[in-house]
Amino acid sequence: MHDHIAEVPLEKAYRLINHGPTVLVSAQHEETRNVMAAAWACALDFSPPKVTVVLDKIAKTRELVELSGVFVIQVPTAAQLQLTRAVGSVSLQEDPQKLAHSGVELFSISGHDVPFVAGCSAWLACKLLPEPHNQSTYDLFIGEVVAAWADTRVFSDGHWHFERAHPDFRSLHYIAGGHFYAIGEALTPSVI
Amino acid sequence: MHDHIAEVPLEKAYRLINHGPTVLVSAQHEETRNVMAAAWACALDFSPPKVTVVLDKIAKTRELVELSGVFVIQVPTAAQLQLTRAVGSVSLQEDPQKLAHSGVELFSISGHDVPFVAGCSAWLACKLLPEPHNQSTYDLFIGEVVAAWADTRVFSDGHWHFERAHPDFRSLHYIAGGHFYAIGEALTPSVI
Repeated sequence: MHDHIAEVPLEKAYRLINHGPTVLVSAQHEETRNVMAAAWACALDFSPPKVTVVLDKIAKTRELVELSGVFVIQVPTAAQLQLTRAVGSVSLQEDPQKLAHSGVELFSISGHDVPFVAGCSAWLACKLLPEPHNQSTYDLFIGEVVAAWADTRVFSDGHWHFERAHPDFRSLHYIAGGHFYAIGEALTPSVI
Repeated sequence: MHDHIAEVPLEKAYRLINHGPTVLVSAQHEETRNVMAAAWACALDFSPPKVTVVLDKIAKTRELVELSGVFVIQVPTAAQLQLTRAVGSVSLQEDPQKLAHSGVELFSISGHDVPFVAGCSAWLACKLLPEPHNQSTYDLFIGEVVAAWADTRVFSDGHWHFERAHPDFRSLHYIAGGHFYAIGEALTPSVI
């Protein structure tokens, strides 16, 4: 395991994407691996943790998820802005070297037969819960989170620490047309 | 219509929630109106625009959505931090005066028989697309966006302008335990 990567208890895994970041989805089938960007990913349940993600029919990653039944949702950082834009703009069909050209470095985690993107701040290993109607009608995929990890420099003890981590660790929030926002300052309401 | 509120073309409505803000969900059936906070809301399609939102079985708002078939997804602002926390913490069952006690002011828009929360930055009027399996198994609701509006002081010409609007307009991104982040700085990658 890389330095700074620590497992996150499953009951706190939803917190890794609760603030609505744009994510990277990675999957593998036999020798084919791919990574795509997805703004439409969301927590669905606490325990067991589940997520939804929209995977377009033209996405090669969707095919890999359908064939393998597993995928990773990971949270890219501000330092990966260019990488995130690249894997969201170029298809594996257009460029078989897409991952190398996008600057993606993959790594593996023992016990999980799915590729993880290095340099992200959080990773959720997911098992597809097949829902053919949702997948065909809405391009909507549901995954159960089976394990989760985060970079302890920005997420520890069950909490994000964007406000005191290096700004390069901030999550990305995509709008459209290449425009992103980084997550900003912490806000805490008075106790109710 | 209130000052500063302008209609957003349906094909750009997804941009109002693409960056993953925590939203407020409002609905009405007969004389009962309610508003709840939801961190688990997400765009689902561009055209016609659709959204997903998770509504727990204990939420009164869920019952109102099921009975009326319509609801509003709206984007609260940093100025509404306390309101957002309040409507997400208190139930209408516990406090029949929840909306007044939370500081919620509702307004109406001609042609839409559903309550809108004043002071938000964007509003998406949605028609429920009934999916009983998703609703009962996952608490997952799908809505088609039938009209959308935004406050032109922070969203105009199809784009958010958080970086030049007053900080009070920033969107809220909930984590857990009363901790929110505001959306932060704009980031634009180099052209690929």
